[in-house]
Amino acid sequence: MNKISGIAASAGIAIARAFILEHPDYSVQKTQVNDTQAELDKLDDALQQSSVELEAIKERTLQELGEKKAEIFASHLLILNDPEFIDPVKSLITTESINASYALNEIANQFIAMFENMKSAYLQERAADMRDVSKRILKHLLGISQISPAEIAEETIVIAEDLTPSDTAQLNRKYVKGFTTNIGGRTSHSAIMARSLEIPAVVGTQNVLSQVTSGDLVIVDGLAGEVLINPSEEVVAEYRIKQQAYDQQIAEWKKLRDLPTLTKDNVQVELAANIGTPADVEGVLDNGGEAVGLYRTEFLYMGRDKLPSENVQYNAYKTVLEKMNGKPVVVRTLDIGGDKELPYLEMPKEMNPFLGFRAIRLCLDRQDIFRVQLRALLRASVYGNLRIMFPMIATLGEFRAAKAVLLEEKEKLTSEGVAVSDNIQLGIMVEIPSTAVLADQFAKEVDFFSIGTNDLIQYTMAADRMNERVSYLYQPYNPSILRLIDMVIKAAHKQGKWVGMCGEMAGDETAIPLLIGLGLDEFSMSASSILPARSLISKLSASDMLQLAEKALEQGTAEEVVELVKATVSK
Amino acid sequence: MNKISGIAASAGIAIARAFILEHPDYSVQKTQVNDTQAELDKLDDALQQSSVELEAIKERTLQELGEKKAEIFASHLLILNDPEFIDPVKSLITTESINASYALNEIANQFIAMFENMKSAYLQERAADMRDVSKRILKHLLGISQISPAEIAEETIVIAEDLTPSDTAQLNRKYVKGFTTNIGGRTSHSAIMARSLEIPAVVGTQNVLSQVTSGDLVIVDGLAGEVLINPSEEVVAEYRIKQQAYDQQIAEWKKLRDLPTLTKDNVQVELAANIGTPADVEGVLDNGGEAVGLYRTEFLYMGRDKLPSENVQYNAYKTVLEKMNGKPVVVRTLDIGGDKELPYLEMPKEMNPFLGFRAIRLCLDRQDIFRVQLRALLRASVYGNLRIMFPMIATLGEFRAAKAVLLEEKEKLTSEGVAVSDNIQLGIMVEIPSTAVLADQFAKEVDFFSIGTNDLIQYTMAADRMNERVSYLYQPYNPSILRLIDMVIKAAHKQGKWVGMCGEMAGDETAIPLLIGLGLDEFSMSASSILPARSLISKLSASDMLQLAEKALEQGTAEEVVELVKATVSK
Repeated sequence: MNKISGIAASAGIAIARAFILEHPDYSVQKTQVNDTQAELDKLDDALQQSSVELEAIKERTLQELGEKKAEIFASHLLILNDPEFIDPVKSLITTESINASYALNEIANQFIAMFENMKSAYLQERAADMRDVSKRILKHLLGISQISPAEIAEETIVIAEDLTPSDTAQLNRKYVKGFTTNIGGRTSHSAIMARSLEIPAVVGTQNVLSQVTSGDLVIVDGLAGEVLINPSEEVVAEYRIKQQAYDQQIAEWKKLRDLPTLTKDNVQVELAANIGTPADVEGVLDNGGEAVGLYRTEFLYMGRDKLPSENVQYNAYKTVLEKMNGKPVVVRTLDIGGDKELPYLEMPKEMNPFLGFRAIRLCLDRQDIFRVQLRALLRASVYGNLRIMFPMIATLGEFRAAKAVLLEEKEKLTSEGVAVSDNIQLGIMVEIPSTAVLADQFAKEVDFFSIGTNDLIQYTMAADRMNERVSYLYQPYNPSILRLIDMVIKAAHKQGKWVGMCGEMAGDETAIPLLIGLGLDEFSMSASSILPARSLISKLSASDMLQLAEKALEQGTAEEVVELVKATVSK
Repeated sequence: MNKISGIAASAGIAIARAFILEHPDYSVQKTQVNDTQAELDKLDDALQQSSVELEAIKERTLQELGEKKAEIFASHLLILNDPEFIDPVKSLITTESINASYALNEIANQFIAMFENMKSAYLQERAADMRDVSKRILKHLLGISQISPAEIAEETIVIAEDLTPSDTAQLNRKYVKGFTTNIGGRTSHSAIMARSLEIPAVVGTQNVLSQVTSGDLVIVDGLAGEVLINPSEEVVAEYRIKQQAYDQQIAEWKKLRDLPTLTKDNVQVELAANIGTPADVEGVLDNGGEAVGLYRTEFLYMGRDKLPSENVQYNAYKTVLEKMNGKPVVVRTLDIGGDKELPYLEMPKEMNPFLGFRAIRLCLDRQDIFRVQLRALLRASVYGNLRIMFPMIATLGEFRAAKAVLLEEKEKLTSEGVAVSDNIQLGIMVEIPSTAVLADQFAKEVDFFSIGTNDLIQYTMAADRMNERVSYLYQPYNPSILRLIDMVIKAAHKQGKWVGMCGEMAGDETAIPLLIGLGLDEFSMSASSILPARSLISKLSASDMLQLAEKALEQGTAEEVVELVKATVSK
């Protein structure tokens, strides 16, 4: 047995066979061939294999996800059998005496370029289909045995160098029991996604990929941050017990699902969830979320070829609002840039992207993009309790400018006769130190604050949280961070406004006692953290926590704060 | 006449002929030649031209900078005439029938590699000489007409895409009357250097390089931020008058040189200067500087092949302390990383270098480097009034760790019998928001603070000051920045400690009234800003400025603060 340590990124224990997820090389080279018939035969074989594969995926999708999702694979099958596509490939092989993979790639690229230049949105989308189908044929031509994460159809543990947001979006919770990666930290996208999908995960192992072979039995211990490779039967048995104990605790927590969140001395707070897609709402409700505290709308913009239309966005927002059934939904407007790029938006390379042109900075400049999102939000607002939040606000001027754009779009819609709610709260993320320091001025103009601790900590400490050499400075418990949070809460309460938190810190068990003491109103976290948080809060006295927080604000270092919390809060 | 606008980077007006500074391509390719005699002749010509050039430089250096500096060119002449170097080049040309430039490069590289592998420091330095000499010969072989900035020997205005620190270090104040560049901002290195050298400069013009031809008459108006190309005689006359007026104002200011810095109501502050090298001290004293508020020791580490030895550093620190003759000298320990790289220190590429592994973070990790600098400083401490300052302190833990290393080295030196001053003040840069917010805790342990506004602003606003797309967020007058400065000053004074400022803001005429009001004790700026600042401060009432500052802290935006200052301080 081989045991590897990493970072516990998502709680729980998973036991299954390893599935190695790699991104194979699909590049092709032009080769002159003597035997063109052999190439034609290879092409036929690849088409046949692709066809069998697609039929199976279509069938499975139909059963599991319904007719609408299966349609896409039906259209892939049509392309695969379309002589207008395949005949030119065959003819290129024979006339030029070249290899099948090059000929296929060449013709597919011509079609893709043609579709992409079409005015019709429908035909533009065909470019994406053509790309998928040709890649599938190429896979068989090149003898690549890799299957895509979406096609995993048996219980597995996914092992990868790293998982892209598009990889994680494709993971099927039914089959993917856990995952582990070489790189990443607790706040990397894959870790956040794992908690949102409630899949046990261990990241940042450095070398798990080189230690595991496909089919190895693997245990992912997302509680201890450990990965066990080919464990003995005894060890497996031991972990099955741990797994049961954890599942039992989860069951205990589930009893708190429909109860309000109250401290021992009956102070009520709100526990909300962070979501990325409408599909996440189910998990929020299952875990007793009282609100969506952060809807990250970036995912609507990712994994596609162009900006999402107003209607695509409207439908997503409407779905979330309807599913939440009157409970508050805080939607953050587009937060792109920094480490999150969109391939179809040309953004110049920046020397320090985290200090660069992103989020509201980009939206105020690219109002063509911003206004479409605001219109979609305003139109959806009548379907629930919408709250709109601007990210990366650094100055009052930026907030005023963004609010003015929103009001203009609201005015336009109203004059067009479109119904818009009059009860939309308008708030900002507090994730830049200037805004925390000036919170009293902002509090006069906003309806609420949501503290984004991931960025607030990184800017306040001037340390890139993705950079391992300075990760020791990512200190949520540093008294300076607590003081900024304190300033924001005091300033808001003075104006009768509420304060939430949607960074990782809101769900952290060492931070929660401090945040209760500081008077935070709303805690927004991964859905899976809500019930443990509700359980923890029910054991805390708000008045004791106030004293704890006051002491913590006067400490010199993060270590001293952690000691203080440990000494005050009995486990 | 062509007029180009840019950023006024250094005050004053310069009128002279243009000198285009470009970095030519020195790469060589191997070519087979039929006529090897022609290549041998080319080589002889190039050696001859290099020899003439070196003799002239040696002579000029001897007259202007003394015998010691001239020695280096004497040794270059020896290499040029050394048959052990030149004969192999000739033989390579003949035996292989190849071009002279390739043969020269080949043999030179062999010598350089050999010298670099030597244990002796003396022979290692020969590698640098060999590199200089072979580049000079190559320049003639390749017909490159470029002369290096050090060789400029008539009055010129330097025109460049950008100036590297090594370029600016080589500029001869006697001949370089002004410069202008395509890129850069007010806080870029070249701009800071221009102010320190008191050379009028306009940076960030975008396209001056493409608009000017060598020899064009150019006016650099460092007051208005404008560059005039081939102006008419009338315009030149007009600018000569402006130049005189400016020179007269300078003369007025010079009268304040030996006076203390007092407000109208007799509150005294200290005006100090930022320096980069011992040579800058002269300018500090000429401009009535009462202290060195920031000695940037990075320059000791730049423009060389390896780390500076303890003795090289000791001599530099001793020189500055002695020249300042008992006046305080605040030395900042190595602040490398971020945008400042050392070619001989392998540092991994970072995604966000401004939030990365730099300054004290690097020094605490690379104590081999840090301890050498501290020993040099401690040994020099007996020659004046030394104050040591650590950069980029984000946590109390880092300060304690750095202080412990300093005390260890002091202990070691004392036990070796080396004299060390017992009156060295130990302080920190406040340039990270966490440290400003927690200043009351730091104030108990440090002897002083120096607020580094360039970085403090960029982290507090989360905006890279080098990134033009977010430069609107570089807001020194944002009330959040003023509040952080206020916190730091109040916290320090409560513990009886003093606070300086060594960012660009300290010399800014809009900021000075606010800083007087906030109670700043020491202002450290470019030497050339000291006398204008002393003149401005003499016209301000500290008690009025206190009221101004209190109002400014309650504004919502930077624009409102600027309005307030304008309305309060009559020009």
